[in-house]
Amino acid sequence: MQYPSHLIEDAVNAFARFPGIGRKTALRLTLHVLRQDAALAELLGNAVIKLKQQARFCQKCGNIADAHLCNICANPARDQTLVCIVEDLRDVIAIENTGQFHGTYHILNGLISPLDGIGPDQLNIESLVERATTGQISEMILALAANMEGDTTAFYIGKRLAGLPIRISSISRGIAVGGELEYADEITLGRSIVNRIPFGQQGVGHI
Amino acid sequence: MQYPSHLIEDAVNAFARFPGIGRKTALRLTLHVLRQDAALAELLGNAVIKLKQQARFCQKCGNIADAHLCNICANPARDQTLVCIVEDLRDVIAIENTGQFHGTYHILNGLISPLDGIGPDQLNIESLVERATTGQISEMILALAANMEGDTTAFYIGKRLAGLPIRISSISRGIAVGGELEYADEITLGRSIVNRIPFGQQGVGHI
Repeated sequence: MQYPSHLIEDAVNAFARFPGIGRKTALRLTLHVLRQDAALAELLGNAVIKLKQQARFCQKCGNIADAHLCNICANPARDQTLVCIVEDLRDVIAIENTGQFHGTYHILNGLISPLDGIGPDQLNIESLVERATTGQISEMILALAANMEGDTTAFYIGKRLAGLPIRISSISRGIAVGGELEYADEITLGRSIVNRIPFGQQGVGHI
Repeated sequence: MQYPSHLIEDAVNAFARFPGIGRKTALRLTLHVLRQDAALAELLGNAVIKLKQQARFCQKCGNIADAHLCNICANPARDQTLVCIVEDLRDVIAIENTGQFHGTYHILNGLISPLDGIGPDQLNIESLVERATTGQISEMILALAANMEGDTTAFYIGKRLAGLPIRISSISRGIAVGGELEYADEITLGRSIVNRIPFGQQGVGHI
């Protein structure tokens, strides 16, 4: 594709390096910058550059932080003996929005994926094992995606934590609340029967 | 939604101001910046800021330009008596990619849309009328979207140019080349019959 100016071409190339953005979408975003006043260009440009320059990560859980510990790890009201293991920040935000979890997190920053060349060394797994061996953790909850990468990562972490006096659990899978049985896929429905819970014991509070 | 850092929040807010990008996609893009090395952040940040600061527009057609005329208006090999009227730069790139048009363009920078508060005054229509009255234009081709905004804009331009010694035409609508009749919508198929062209007179060259 030929662009009428190298300025357009540079912006399109930059946008197109993001996942899910092809060259046509990149051009649409570039033209939006051109059409809006200069405030939007500076807002985006400075936000992105500052984000990368100034972002710090919590030394405990890997969450993004404004100090050396994140808001959650530094909060004495959170249950510091409970750790929820997640893939990335989006999962933290999703779980925080439920308002039902008052423990802490550990952010792996990805999942083991041999096809993409991502092994355990590239993830925050060593720091997780260190946290587990301090003796201050009572339970770790695996909240990873239910796919091959998530299962592989969960299996690897389970092996690394084996033998430590820590309860290891996994978030429950099953029919969504309000979901119709007839529209559920067979694997989810099958597992929800295998992993059935005694009537009256389903938790509805928060931990 | 609560974000763990104002840096994240600023970047999400900036991305979410683009059309077609909601807050979840904005967060995904923001996390991509965080995960990649600093080169991507600087590439995007600088490209966007420079684009808005340095972009110049062709004084004749409104296309983006590196000098006071764009490459197309400054090119003596292009037929300067022929003007194709388009909505924005994307249409120029699409038509240029066909390789079949060797005239010039006029970029309206939008379409008349009362619902969005866009009237003729916000578009490059005055400069189009000026070009039309120079006596150097023989034909203007309307290449606007086939929707309410496109039709309204075409009707308005047609009225403004009425009486001038210029041929005004519109790109043809019909069944796509290689398209199956049975899958075409009724309106397109109907118009393609009403606007039929004598057999053997369909152009296949370029203008």
